[in-house]
Amino acid sequence: MYESFRYHPDTGLKTNLSVEEINQSLKDERSVIWIDLCDIDDSDIDFLTTTFNLHPLTIEDFIMPNARPKIENYNDYLYLIMFSLQAPSSNGGKIKANELDCCLGRNFLITYHEFQGGPVSSSKDKVNKQSPIIKNGADMLLYSILDSCIDSYLPVIQEFDVHVDEMSDELFKDPSKETLKKIYTLKNSVMYLRRAIGPQADVVNLVTRGEYPFIRGTNHIYFRNIYDNLMRLNDLVGTSRDIITGAMEAYVSVVSNRLNEIMKTLTVIATIMMPLTLIASIYGMNFKHMPELESRHGYPFVIGLMVFITVSMLLYFKRRKWL
Amino acid sequence: MYESFRYHPDTGLKTNLSVEEINQSLKDERSVIWIDLCDIDDSDIDFLTTTFNLHPLTIEDFIMPNARPKIENYNDYLYLIMFSLQAPSSNGGKIKANELDCCLGRNFLITYHEFQGGPVSSSKDKVNKQSPIIKNGADMLLYSILDSCIDSYLPVIQEFDVHVDEMSDELFKDPSKETLKKIYTLKNSVMYLRRAIGPQADVVNLVTRGEYPFIRGTNHIYFRNIYDNLMRLNDLVGTSRDIITGAMEAYVSVVSNRLNEIMKTLTVIATIMMPLTLIASIYGMNFKHMPELESRHGYPFVIGLMVFITVSMLLYFKRRKWL
Amino acid sequence: MYESFRYHPDTGLKTNLSVEEINQSLKDERSVIWIDLCDIDDSDIDFLTTTFNLHPLTIEDFIMPNARPKIENYNDYLYLIMFSLQAPSSNGGKIKANELDCCLGRNFLITYHEFQGGPVSSSKDKVNKQSPIIKNGADMLLYSILDSCIDSYLPVIQEFDVHVDEMSDELFKDPSKETLKKIYTLKNSVMYLRRAIGPQADVVNLVTRGEYPFIRGTNHIYFRNIYDNLMRLNDLVGTSRDIITGAMEAYVSVVSNRLNEIMKTLTVIATIMMPLTLIASIYGMNFKHMPELESRHGYPFVIGLMVFITVSMLLYFKRRKWL
Amino acid sequence: MYESFRYHPDTGLKTNLSVEEINQSLKDERSVIWIDLCDIDDSDIDFLTTTFNLHPLTIEDFIMPNARPKIENYNDYLYLIMFSLQAPSSNGGKIKANELDCCLGRNFLITYHEFQGGPVSSSKDKVNKQSPIIKNGADMLLYSILDSCIDSYLPVIQEFDVHVDEMSDELFKDPSKETLKKIYTLKNSVMYLRRAIGPQADVVNLVTRGEYPFIRGTNHIYFRNIYDNLMRLNDLVGTSRDIITGAMEAYVSVVSNRLNEIMKTLTVIATIMMPLTLIASIYGMNFKHMPELESRHGYPFVIGLMVFITVSMLLYFKRRKWL
Amino acid sequence: MYESFRYHPDTGLKTNLSVEEINQSLKDERSVIWIDLCDIDDSDIDFLTTTFNLHPLTIEDFIMPNARPKIENYNDYLYLIMFSLQAPSSNGGKIKANELDCCLGRNFLITYHEFQGGPVSSSKDKVNKQSPIIKNGADMLLYSILDSCIDSYLPVIQEFDVHVDEMSDELFKDPSKETLKKIYTLKNSVMYLRRAIGPQADVVNLVTRGEYPFIRGTNHIYFRNIYDNLMRLNDLVGTSRDIITGAMEAYVSVVSNRLNEIMKTLTVIATIMMPLTLIASIYGMNFKHMPELESRHGYPFVIGLMVFITVSMLLYFKRRKWL
Repeated sequence: MYESFRYHPDTGLKTNLSVEEINQSLKDERSVIWIDLCDIDDSDIDFLTTTFNLHPLTIEDFIMPNARPKIENYNDYLYLIMFSLQAPSSNGGKIKANELDCCLGRNFLITYHEFQGGPVSSSKDKVNKQSPIIKNGADMLLYSILDSCIDSYLPVIQEFDVHVDEMSDELFKDPSKETLKKIYTLKNSVMYLRRAIGPQADVVNLVTRGEYPFIRGTNHIYFRNIYDNLMRLNDLVGTSRDIITGAMEAYVSVVSNRLNEIMKTLTVIATIMMPLTLIASIYGMNFKHMPELESRHGYPFVIGLMVFITVSMLLYFKRRKWL
Repeated sequence: MYESFRYHPDTGLKTNLSVEEINQSLKDERSVIWIDLCDIDDSDIDFLTTTFNLHPLTIEDFIMPNARPKIENYNDYLYLIMFSLQAPSSNGGKIKANELDCCLGRNFLITYHEFQGGPVSSSKDKVNKQSPIIKNGADMLLYSILDSCIDSYLPVIQEFDVHVDEMSDELFKDPSKETLKKIYTLKNSVMYLRRAIGPQADVVNLVTRGEYPFIRGTNHIYFRNIYDNLMRLNDLVGTSRDIITGAMEAYVSVVSNRLNEIMKTLTVIATIMMPLTLIASIYGMNFKHMPELESRHGYPFVIGLMVFITVSMLLYFKRRKWL
Repeated sequence: MYESFRYHPDTGLKTNLSVEEINQSLKDERSVIWIDLCDIDDSDIDFLTTTFNLHPLTIEDFIMPNARPKIENYNDYLYLIMFSLQAPSSNGGKIKANELDCCLGRNFLITYHEFQGGPVSSSKDKVNKQSPIIKNGADMLLYSILDSCIDSYLPVIQEFDVHVDEMSDELFKDPSKETLKKIYTLKNSVMYLRRAIGPQADVVNLVTRGEYPFIRGTNHIYFRNIYDNLMRLNDLVGTSRDIITGAMEAYVSVVSNRLNEIMKTLTVIATIMMPLTLIASIYGMNFKHMPELESRHGYPFVIGLMVFITVSMLLYFKRRKWL
Repeated sequence: MYESFRYHPDTGLKTNLSVEEINQSLKDERSVIWIDLCDIDDSDIDFLTTTFNLHPLTIEDFIMPNARPKIENYNDYLYLIMFSLQAPSSNGGKIKANELDCCLGRNFLITYHEFQGGPVSSSKDKVNKQSPIIKNGADMLLYSILDSCIDSYLPVIQEFDVHVDEMSDELFKDPSKETLKKIYTLKNSVMYLRRAIGPQADVVNLVTRGEYPFIRGTNHIYFRNIYDNLMRLNDLVGTSRDIITGAMEAYVSVVSNRLNEIMKTLTVIATIMMPLTLIASIYGMNFKHMPELESRHGYPFVIGLMVFITVSMLLYFKRRKWL
Repeated sequence: MYESFRYHPDTGLKTNLSVEEINQSLKDERSVIWIDLCDIDDSDIDFLTTTFNLHPLTIEDFIMPNARPKIENYNDYLYLIMFSLQAPSSNGGKIKANELDCCLGRNFLITYHEFQGGPVSSSKDKVNKQSPIIKNGADMLLYSILDSCIDSYLPVIQEFDVHVDEMSDELFKDPSKETLKKIYTLKNSVMYLRRAIGPQADVVNLVTRGEYPFIRGTNHIYFRNIYDNLMRLNDLVGTSRDIITGAMEAYVSVVSNRLNEIMKTLTVIATIMMPLTLIASIYGMNFKHMPELESRHGYPFVIGLMVFITVSMLLYFKRRKWL
């Protein structure tokens, strides 16, 4: 099943075209045709192959889920795989990249995407509202869709950055096992983002080099604009990656610092208590001849000695900044 | 020993050809000949050298086990080394790459592989079943074999990813010495995969650049498809590598966290027990004049003091989140 | 709102030009016009679009905050985004990069910057004081402004290096949790600096390659000078980055060293005190038949034994360099 | 002192040529002359300069020990520095690279190497035994020598890999201070191997590009074969390097794991012993009024309590998997 | 103030030339003029600008301290910034790079260096002693000076390597806090060396590409020689860097190993002493009915038990290799 749109300067916008209308419009260079598919069945494959002359490998790429952007120049069309981003639904969820396949011909654009809503829907709305994005030709329609695609990245990355900042604060204030897990998850996400953005920038950069006939020279600047946006996003993500990598490295130091604190506590306790216990044990010995035991002042003296040892030890540790 | 196949539009498929038949078919450009070798003896070397004019260095490469893909353009043929992947037989086993040597001439293809079964076997089955993969020429036959080769990668990589996910879970739930060993082994495997996939992509990329006469221009798109698949696999493996590298770094932090827990337990125990023991030791001293000892309420008071100290210490550690 | 300057060899400098004057001057190739904008409203957009023929994407870039330098060649002008640096106002503050957008035409320069003061202000002062920087043409005016821009980097980087040196000293003298946080913050800052400087060098390098018509060949050497300065700054920052990365790695070793010290103290204390306490406990046992207890010299002998054990332990630890 | 060989299709092999014979042979393009030097004195320098027109810088490079491969094109000859590898003599010894300088002219080859034996000796043996390696021209003689050179790498690298595997096993079975030192030494060795192999591959790659007149086009494939071998060795070494780097990272985790084990032991001991000692100390107090002391069942009850505490503690630690 | 030298095949060497003599000599292509400046005042700037037509940016570069090598082609001369190295004066001092600015024209060379002595001084001595280095033209004079420059690197790097070896030994024999500081300092120094050598190699490589008119084609081989030397030094420094990086990583493991030793000591002591103290405390309890206390053999039995526990514990720890 597919939705179809045709714009012609004389007749304006028409939707839900028959196959025959599409075939006729394709011959008229002034028409712009947009076919949008959400799923694909055998009759669609037939239609795409006979009407638009799509290569079997293109159909294969439509159907197979792809993990990477690509650009491929066929005789009759330019084939592009791009991705829009979707923020994780829940808090601990994963960022998702939704594939968008595009075939740009001289006066037609075919888009295929399993994911409902998002950038293509909003473009469809604009086209239906007679917005001029379809009037400027198929290449500008593609630009408009890709632009909405890339616009879906910024909110995802900004939300991601909020998580990075939270993690950064937590790292030095109250680091826990959870913080480490958070760093680990963020690191894997940021790698995912890098892999999503970088190759798309490469693909769009190829578009701007002017080698593809179906994108008019005067419109290269618009695709260059998408490229600039992707590079900017790439920089943002690169900064986050550096911060997260630094946090991973810092975490082990933070944990070691904590261990030092714990061990200091233990050492202080042991260093004070052990000599005191020794003194008490000495005067607990059962020797017949221990003159101190007979003395009236033995007991208060020993207690005094213990207090003195405790206080001087505490002062000593205070000076070494262990307390 | 070798198996031989010949397809001719007029006579169809014929197998087990004599050397003479092969020589005659080679002169007829419309024939497609496929020679498949599993081992190689001196008579085979003679046959390959005289009939197909293979260079001594090619024969040398056939015989010698190679660790890296390569492409080499000779006058009469294109020489390719590629690899199929084989999942480890047992759980802790190693991933194995099986070498496949190919010589593609104008109307012939020679394949050599020590490993039985796998991609070449399935291609042989298809050819025997009159599947069209041999009808489209030697270059498309090569494509078909390489495509099956690359198809052997995905299950191996998917199984690998399952191990990575298991390890990731284990890392934060129940990290042990075994987890570390698992990370270490996975890291070495992922490096092996990278070295297996990356250079093959480079080799196939060279094929798609159209510099080799025995691959027809219209078929470049098919080899480009193999290249895309390899890059996609490379991305998957790259993601796994990033996760494993992060896990290696995280492991030491996880272990340090555990040490902190252990040391907290020790410190809490020592900090509570030592003062109590000191008190008991003090009242175990044998001084003649210790007024408390005579008191009726001395003993219950001391026990009460001990309980009080214990409770307040526990509260203190609770507040510092050590318990 | 914008400020406008015009220099003409015959009439000299004139400021606050009317739109009509600007339009006339643009036709006279001997004039040099400078338009400086601090904020931009709809009338400004109109003015820029109609008078200077700025592309809508340029206007969009003016308004949108950009995170990365860029150079873009339009028909009528060259569009550049560069950044000046601003030292953090407070001690723990962040380094800030202020965007500067420039459009260089044949005989005009348009600058847009939200940040008041800094390099553009000082250039404006120079122009008002009849300094020759505007007399040599629009490209040299751009050079002069970019040069002041880059001059704003050195003090920021020098101040940064002071912090790096302080951190380096602290690391080995008195490392604390604060030191780690400092290293972490410095690392993120140095990454920020790298991302600010490197791409600007790339942009200026493109200018020096002589592909842009509005920069005269004889002036390339001046932009090359800016490029050299940026590379020098890049080197300085690279050195700082290496030092900070090394400090991050060293910190965990420093902390582990400290832990060793703490544990040595604890071990020494426990190793001396535990045997002494054991001896005292032994002679605190209540066995009827313990001959030593009856002896006159038992008590002084035990005390002597304790002193002997303590002294020999201390000597032993001294020799193992634990004390 | 030098050894000299001449092959001529008419006269066959002749050794120990006089300077005059060499001069004459040089003029006859069908001769192949090989001069092999093990040390070099002033008369040799004279001879090389006047007869073969070697550049003073080449002579300088002959004499000076070089640490890196290089290729240099002079008018009359091609100058190459390559290295053969020598396994360490003792177990803990270092891998050694032996320099081999070659000057390849139209019909002559000069080799210089301080190290006796190895690849050049075996080539000399082959030449003396009338093996055809000298009959195919000076470039094929160079190929033959370089091939033996590269053949010296595989045993060294295989032995190295054995050490890496041993270390890998030791790391998880019985890691000691020695293991760390082994990893550290292996890491430095693997870096040495990388630096030995990589640049040689670059040098040989330059040879295969066909820019040097003294290597005939049909023989490029042979040098390409050397290049392939070097790349294969480079891959092997790269794999080892990855393993060693991973081992270095894993070591600190392994050691931390061990520390956890040690601390668990200590904590278990302290946690069981301290409360028991406290109980014993409490009943060692000398209060007049401690009713339990009078009771007949006091002592067995306390011992029973101690046993109960011990057993329940052990069960608790068992459940927390500390035992 | 400057020193001046002129060599002419007819008149030989002349020093301390007047400005007029210099101007005349410049017109005679057979003269070679060398101007060496140690500091620069306004009259020097005048002289350089009018006589040699130096660009204001060159003068600016002369005066401003530069941190990076560069090459710049002006119409009348080639401008080069290179560096000589100076070993640290004291043991803990820093390696210093001394800037050398060179302007090479058709028949003149201008050198500027603030640092006295070193490579330029020795070249001056050679020129004064009628050594032929000035007779071969200005480009060979430049070569000679740069060659001495690069010769100053080897001793510095060799001394550096001695420190690296010392550190390596110390790391495994007797690692202390000082060792870590040494590694940290060496790491920063090696980074400094890399940044000093690498870009100079790039600059000299540009010289050898034959694009600069003032360096004659036949002399490229000499500058190529300098390039080779720099690459060799770069390799040496690269090796040191790898060793130091490995040492940094190994240090934390070494320190952790030590901690393990310390904790083993503590655990052994505590594990032996605590049960003994418990036993002694048990028999120190004041229960009325403790039959063992009455027994004649109670005391020797308990002492024997203690000895038995101690010995069996020691054996146990011996077997676990903790002792």
